[in-house]
Amino acid sequence: MSSLQRIQFYTAPYSPYSHRVRLALDEAGADYVAHNFPNTRTKPEWYYQVNPRGRIPSIAYGGPDVPAEEPSPESVKLTESLALIEFIADLFPESGLLPKDPILRAKARGFIQIYDSFIQPPFKAAFFLGEAIEPLLLELEKIQAALPPTGFAIGQYSIADCAVAPFFVRMKMFLRRGIGAFSQENREKLSEVLASEKFARFRQYVEDLENRPNFQKIWDEVELWTKLPTPRKE
Amino acid sequence: MSSLQRIQFYTAPYSPYSHRVRLALDEAGADYVAHNFPNTRTKPEWYYQVNPRGRIPSIAYGGPDVPAEEPSPESVKLTESLALIEFIADLFPESGLLPKDPILRAKARGFIQIYDSFIQPPFKAAFFLGEAIEPLLLELEKIQAALPPTGFAIGQYSIADCAVAPFFVRMKMFLRRGIGAFSQENREKLSEVLASEKFARFRQYVEDLENRPNFQKIWDEVELWTKLPTPRKE
Ligand SMILES: N[C@@H](CCC(=O)N[C@@H](CS)C(=O)NCC(=O)O)C(=O)O
Ligand SMILES: N[C@@H](CCC(=O)N[C@@H](CS)C(=O)NCC(=O)O)C(=O)O
Repeated sequence: MSSLQRIQFYTAPYSPYSHRVRLALDEAGADYVAHNFPNTRTKPEWYYQVNPRGRIPSIAYGGPDVPAEEPSPESVKLTESLALIEFIADLFPESGLLPKDPILRAKARGFIQIYDSFIQPPFKAAFFLGEAIEPLLLELEKIQAALPPTGFAIGQYSIADCAVAPFFVRMKMFLRRGIGAFSQENREKLSEVLASEKFARFRQYVEDLENRPNFQKIWDEVELWTKLPTPRKE
Repeated sequence: MSSLQRIQFYTAPYSPYSHRVRLALDEAGADYVAHNFPNTRTKPEWYYQVNPRGRIPSIAYGGPDVPAEEPSPESVKLTESLALIEFIADLFPESGLLPKDPILRAKARGFIQIYDSFIQPPFKAAFFLGEAIEPLLLELEKIQAALPPTGFAIGQYSIADCAVAPFFVRMKMFLRRGIGAFSQENREKLSEVLASEKFARFRQYVEDLENRPNFQKIWDEVELWTKLPTPRKE
């Protein structure tokens, strides 16, 4: 393992993909400098040197101590939220973000990919395109069934939890605040079903995610931010 | 590292997601038993014990030596292509499927996530929904720009190459055979642009993927299979 280098983290309070990485950094107790963009969409020209797609999150790793706005050609530019949380788990093996057992590792990664492949699309469809809520509910039921009786996605806290927490807590917040393209009827129905006995284990999981210290650390900031502009619709 | 156990691999010749895992298994020289489903969509009832979503690929790991159709409750059931290729890299560290350097690992994973997030959607849109081809070409240009001057996605062969090879070679085959929902005009235009000087590096990369022994091992089977039924449209 190479010795730790400077971590310059590019993020925005609202951005759920960035939030994944922030949770991993804070869980690992990493030392990093965060550069907060005021919003997720418009990026200054210089940022395209860090990420040619202009997306956040990203990390400039190593290189000299330069201002965030003047990225050094000597730092390594790393992008993509899932690659970044794995990177943090690699840099901080003692964080437990990924267990050593290959089976548990596969379960953590499978959980993440199930979220990305099967939950994210109906979540977007229901919340931002005003489509039916049933496909989302079906998938939430399945992911709930995959949770252990207590604890986190694979029991102990891991990158799997960092990857899904930003989305599940936003789902909850959007419903509570009425942020989204769903009809009033769908909002009420979703809120009701998710509050029912059927989803008790899922609710407990989301509460456990929220109560984790790494989550508490910046959630106020996100909540505050989302009171102001309208989040991206797709 | 726990000692190696039995690998029962559930797959289908056409399935690109399964192909990812097969490439990793063969690259690692793993000892495994493959159960080939005749098609990707319809699965027998017993298979839902292996993957509750009925999807392939999956791996039943460990447990007693049972027929594929009678999965043992004692084996661990693992799903999701990306989790599985990481699992194989974890089981076979000497395969080099993932280098030891955290930065190179992050680059390999970033490459995969870029494929999944930014290339897969316009690829599907252009090939199976008959939508515009320009968004796909733009993204292929960007991923080409991210390739090193020679070699594989991160230089040495890695899980990044296992993850994208099945899709890039199918793209090529679909164009050649005219499989897809694109108009004749779009097919010709895509073929022409991808054959131009502009995409020389990308073409070389795809050829390198095709020439790799792990790829050669089963490609004939895939080619043969896709001469028969029509692949899934979405
Ligand atoms: N696949 C990327 C997605 C990142 C992403 O889409 N980030 C959003 C903010 S949450 C963004 O930067 N959007 C700006 C844009 O769409 O141009 C990842 O997982 O990191
Ligand atoms: N996210 C899954 C996707 C797997 C997948 O969709 N597999 C297809 C075959 S390529 C399948 O099993 N389809 C059957 C179905 O849609 O029911 C993975 O990466 O493994």
